[in-house]
Amino acid sequence: MAAAIHFYFDFASPYGYFASTRIDELAAKYGRDVEWHPILLGVVFKTTGGMPLPMIPMKGEYSVRDFERSARFHGIAYKLPQAFPLPTQSAARAMLWVKDKYGDERAIEFAKAVFKAYFVDDVNIGDPVHIAKIASGMGLDSSRMAEGINSAQVKDQLRAEMDLAMARGVFGSPYVIVDNEGFWGFDRFDQVDAMLKNGKI
Amino acid sequence: MAAAIHFYFDFASPYGYFASTRIDELAAKYGRDVEWHPILLGVVFKTTGGMPLPMIPMKGEYSVRDFERSARFHGIAYKLPQAFPLPTQSAARAMLWVKDKYGDERAIEFAKAVFKAYFVDDVNIGDPVHIAKIASGMGLDSSRMAEGINSAQVKDQLRAEMDLAMARGVFGSPYVIVDNEGFWGFDRFDQVDAMLKNGKI
Repeated sequence: MAAAIHFYFDFASPYGYFASTRIDELAAKYGRDVEWHPILLGVVFKTTGGMPLPMIPMKGEYSVRDFERSARFHGIAYKLPQAFPLPTQSAARAMLWVKDKYGDERAIEFAKAVFKAYFVDDVNIGDPVHIAKIASGMGLDSSRMAEGINSAQVKDQLRAEMDLAMARGVFGSPYVIVDNEGFWGFDRFDQVDAMLKNGKI
Repeated sequence: MAAAIHFYFDFASPYGYFASTRIDELAAKYGRDVEWHPILLGVVFKTTGGMPLPMIPMKGEYSVRDFERSARFHGIAYKLPQAFPLPTQSAARAMLWVKDKYGDERAIEFAKAVFKAYFVDDVNIGDPVHIAKIASGMGLDSSRMAEGINSAQVKDQLRAEMDLAMARGVFGSPYVIVDNEGFWGFDRFDQVDAMLKNGKI
């Protein structure tokens, strides 16, 4: 089987959410696995000088409209959360904790549940209590999740993931890497498809 | 005939150039005319805090690769110009001058020739001498173009166009407005198509 593709996303990124609903299916079409990597755009922005979309004059208002239209255009359930954007450290660390404890498959399932909670059911995923509930809802033992989220080990792991992501050129969400070729944005999935199909772009 | 659609672009924007090769054809499919509006991203950036893509850490390098890949993906002739980006005041004013003197159709033809000169033939379109040559090549009398470009009338006209564009929410290139619905980016042309087809999005 060819190498896995890398999928980077921030849990508060609508385009990252849209991508999360399609990436596994797209990769499977070409016999590829997907490695899911939660990142923190706030950390990236320190290097790029970027800002959360809603804070940018003109582009901010436009983006809110574009989120909604793009979701409808692609047939993806979506509602702008009341708390938007919000810090995603806890959600990202929780995913790494689930991965360490239960493995990749359940971690991806957890990530999908977090995205759905935030962008469909308007759950405040900045709150570790709500994150633990999402885990419990999946049948995971979340009684020690809060402790895990705050452990030095998980914090270091996320920091290392961030360093690696940025060394690989990841500066936005979603960001997909196929055989060293990076693609930024859900609107590049047609090119990701072509790259997977032809082995080049 | 339904209302014309508005096409905003900066002459130094690769995505604006890509859009310029497709916008007329797309509009014609739905019986629409296109009004072409040259804008200056430098002016917009004063409001949005934006920067030319190549100057942004990480995103800059990525963009250069994305220009190239996107051109190939869509089958558009393209080469990164040696002087990139560059100021486009002269090109934008020249287009308005052509429009005043020769009408919309020739102005659009001129805009296409300027884009091709810059993004295919690596002509420095920041230089009014080269811009005049492009006009001459089309059979226009460019002997008074330099004077036109520097006239208070044309300068005021570009300023008024910019004010109107920003009042309409234009903050990037390309930016297309269909019946008050704005779309930013060549990668939204699939949604522009749907909007033209269905009258909503």
